[in-house]
Amino acid sequence: MKAGEDKLVERIVEALAPKGGPYLALGVGDDAALLRPRQGYETILTCDWFLEGSHFLRGKHPPDSVGWKCLARAISDIAAIGGQPKCFLLSLALPRTLTGRWLHQFLAGLRGAARSFGCPLAGGDTTRRDEILISVTVIGEVRAGEAVLRSGAKPGDLIFVTGRLGEAELGLQSLRSGRTLGGRDDLSIKKHLYPEPRLAVGQWLARKRVATAMMDLSDGLSSDLTRLCAASRVGARIAIGKIPTVKVLRGKVPKSVDATELALHGGDDYELLFTVRPSRARGLPAAFEGIPLTGIGEITRERRLVRVGPGEREETLAVRGWDPFRHRK
Amino acid sequence: MKAGEDKLVERIVEALAPKGGPYLALGVGDDAALLRPRQGYETILTCDWFLEGSHFLRGKHPPDSVGWKCLARAISDIAAIGGQPKCFLLSLALPRTLTGRWLHQFLAGLRGAARSFGCPLAGGDTTRRDEILISVTVIGEVRAGEAVLRSGAKPGDLIFVTGRLGEAELGLQSLRSGRTLGGRDDLSIKKHLYPEPRLAVGQWLARKRVATAMMDLSDGLSSDLTRLCAASRVGARIAIGKIPTVKVLRGKVPKSVDATELALHGGDDYELLFTVRPSRARGLPAAFEGIPLTGIGEITRERRLVRVGPGEREETLAVRGWDPFRHRK
Repeated sequence: MKAGEDKLVERIVEALAPKGGPYLALGVGDDAALLRPRQGYETILTCDWFLEGSHFLRGKHPPDSVGWKCLARAISDIAAIGGQPKCFLLSLALPRTLTGRWLHQFLAGLRGAARSFGCPLAGGDTTRRDEILISVTVIGEVRAGEAVLRSGAKPGDLIFVTGRLGEAELGLQSLRSGRTLGGRDDLSIKKHLYPEPRLAVGQWLARKRVATAMMDLSDGLSSDLTRLCAASRVGARIAIGKIPTVKVLRGKVPKSVDATELALHGGDDYELLFTVRPSRARGLPAAFEGIPLTGIGEITRERRLVRVGPGEREETLAVRGWDPFRHRK
Repeated sequence: MKAGEDKLVERIVEALAPKGGPYLALGVGDDAALLRPRQGYETILTCDWFLEGSHFLRGKHPPDSVGWKCLARAISDIAAIGGQPKCFLLSLALPRTLTGRWLHQFLAGLRGAARSFGCPLAGGDTTRRDEILISVTVIGEVRAGEAVLRSGAKPGDLIFVTGRLGEAELGLQSLRSGRTLGGRDDLSIKKHLYPEPRLAVGQWLARKRVATAMMDLSDGLSSDLTRLCAASRVGARIAIGKIPTVKVLRGKVPKSVDATELALHGGDDYELLFTVRPSRARGLPAAFEGIPLTGIGEITRERRLVRVGPGEREETLAVRGWDPFRHRK
């Protein structure tokens, strides 16, 4: 008696084996899911598109990467607030021809991310479509009053980033061109395919009240820093020489690759961008659980973005990160 | 300095003018939204696709109906639990050419639904796409322990529906054919374009603990009753003559329209299907706030769906509601 869509839902549920618990009181299978929020905590909500042709390519991105990444990038928004993911909703539209092997591998990648980040499936919606369409909603929680917003940066605050910037963009370029500069284990391709949201760093910065403002880097530093500054009604001055750029290819970076440009405008890094009062910045370690924390500039009263290049030369920072309404596919 | 996507977000925020409050502590504009759940309440979560070509047609459905309906149908899942909607997330992908007039009217319809159902925008994601893609996540709340699930029906319970079934399907047929049988004020077209989730009935049934099981009718009675019975591990016997069918065209229904078939298999009604113990059913009013409540059959121990037709003839009820994996566009 099961219809096609119900069978698909069954396969998803079997693969992800979501379990209820004290928080997720009712998961997949009813009209909606039911959560039991903890007292003293706020609920975090975020959603992200992940669309074939726009955010990934069916022929270039392995199905398990599509599964991993659609969840990991949405969880990155929870990390950006300083929160902990609790569960997610999956909206999935699939061609009939992909309900076999492709779906199996997609679900394996999704299951890997769900387990890795402690974020079980709570519900969703499925339908048939000629292209693969995914929308993921993640629900998280943060202790009341600890959430770090984009709007808290003050003039004089120092600007930090986690990890290295531009790696995922380089990985995408390698993937598109079919030339993997670093071989099969190319770290930049791994970072592009299987990003790791910076949950532990984000939670630590929030709990210790180190960060005055925070967001994740999804569209590229130039675009995202513009947004953080707009929300905080401030400007920023970035020291180009201090930005941690792609490392994996040191020494064999071809001339066509400009590491600074990649770091400024490359998307999909899912590193954290955060600001810290100078008095707190002095005590900040150089790394947290192996993730480098690097100061790259400071917040200014003057509401513009300035890049300080070699020889202290100052220029306006061009905003050239990812924007679906300006870029052509 | 605003990029294309940021401008689109600004227009959405301006049109919907979401306001924070005691529940929605932080709305659009940061990495995520922040909610402050009330003590003694559970959080309800649901999401729904609304895709051009699959769920609506750009040339046939007015943009304000697309805006209204994408939210109303997701809110219907909150009604189906007996809950109250609190806020929603909008994932919207649009062609560049539709960011003018179409978007304006779409947002007007969405604003109408958001105000009508007390469900402000909390966040979302936007991107560019050749087709209009919408995914809506609604967050609601229900007093702890009052949620009505699909799984609570017991043999002997009586089966009820709200409103009249098949109207929205008839409206869709009129819209597709261009022949509005009921003129410009055709109620079935209105029901198809601007559905009203049964929030008040659902909440009343939950609060008074009248319903033992409940769900909303989105894919058609035959498909949805199958799901309720599967979740409750029971069967059902439906009296065909008791089902409230399309009324708007009484007397002028053309021979091609089979009101019973519409009621059994037509989708998009967003009425409620619920079960009641016989002892409680006797006291149930014939209508609640103007919405008819009609008994159409009973839950059985034997796990099959039976339709009882004229002359008490019994047949297996065919499951022919909407299923995107069986139907061709």
